[in-house]
Amino acid sequence: MKADKRRAILRAAERVFRDRRFHEVLLDDVAAAARVGKGTIYLYFSSKEDLFFSLVSDGFLELEARLAKVAATGKPVGDKLCAFGEVLTAVLRERHMMIPAIMSPEFARRRPDARAALQSHHRRLDGILAGILEEGVRAGAVRSDADIHTFTCAFVGGLHGLARRRGRDALRLPVRGLVDLLLKGAQSCRAATGRKRKKQQLQDQP
Amino acid sequence: MKADKRRAILRAAERVFRDRRFHEVLLDDVAAAARVGKGTIYLYFSSKEDLFFSLVSDGFLELEARLAKVAATGKPVGDKLCAFGEVLTAVLRERHMMIPAIMSPEFARRRPDARAALQSHHRRLDGILAGILEEGVRAGAVRSDADIHTFTCAFVGGLHGLARRRGRDALRLPVRGLVDLLLKGAQSCRAATGRKRKKQQLQDQP
Repeated sequence: MKADKRRAILRAAERVFRDRRFHEVLLDDVAAAARVGKGTIYLYFSSKEDLFFSLVSDGFLELEARLAKVAATGKPVGDKLCAFGEVLTAVLRERHMMIPAIMSPEFARRRPDARAALQSHHRRLDGILAGILEEGVRAGAVRSDADIHTFTCAFVGGLHGLARRRGRDALRLPVRGLVDLLLKGAQSCRAATGRKRKKQQLQDQP
Repeated sequence: MKADKRRAILRAAERVFRDRRFHEVLLDDVAAAARVGKGTIYLYFSSKEDLFFSLVSDGFLELEARLAKVAATGKPVGDKLCAFGEVLTAVLRERHMMIPAIMSPEFARRRPDARAALQSHHRRLDGILAGILEEGVRAGAVRSDADIHTFTCAFVGGLHGLARRRGRDALRLPVRGLVDLLLKGAQSCRAATGRKRKKQQLQDQP
């Protein structure tokens, strides 16, 4: 019962925080959305910061669970990366009002644990991504000398870049194009062949 | 003479804003650093916002000029991309205290032209990058079907990702690894050959 009420308040808070900036939200708005008294909220959360932080932490766990599920499918590495990118960018799009608040220095001052929580979250996302790539290496689909750290940075950074340039309202991002670029590269066969030919010429010299 | 004084104030302001958050800086600090009276600052700038915005705009122009110079060298596309990445990340590192301020909704409210200036700046950087890649296509070093928009997003996003994960104090980022990944890709030859072989088998079928 207690867990149900807590969850109901969090669900209502999510709707409220999704559409407004952190400082624009009053606990009265959350109470109204959850159809409880403001006093009830204080039974479960010590402050607006505490409520918001619980909301974001729950969101992290949910996102990680969804991405771990993507990683556990039997699909090829390219398909897994696309699915990973689509889940991640959908969540970023839904929560774009909440992200600046949790990353702001003001929030970090009020909740010193926020930055550490965000960093462990990023580390866990990188870990899931690295797991997909390592599996790709074992399956022979990803080069064994590929730098997995650089790959995850370029992939997650590239998704953010696509989202920023597309605008928040774009429904679907060209995630497949990014995955193809990272897996297949943009170097022309001509350039690769040219280098090989040069190497061959060098070897041919007496 | 007037331009000299303005430049001297901007140079002093840069030192002050580099080490402190926007709201921590007082015009008195800038006046002290520039060895002028606070009244003198108001001869050139209407407010702290105006001074900061001029500083950032000048910084944009300087960065764009440096990157255009990189694009104009006769080097191969990979080397140009590395140089581009190194210049960009060095500036981001030097100015990491100033970036959150110019991007904040608070500053956008006080200076509605800030967001538009930032967007045109990003567009111009993307344009310089696209120019390097298009030259690479003409030179036969970049695949002619490469999606240049996706490439620029992955490259700039990847640089941000590397900087974030490395921490602000890292002196040099592994930019070459990112450029290599984007140009050469991470797909193993085995996977590529496997696909070719499969295609061959399909063609061989009666």
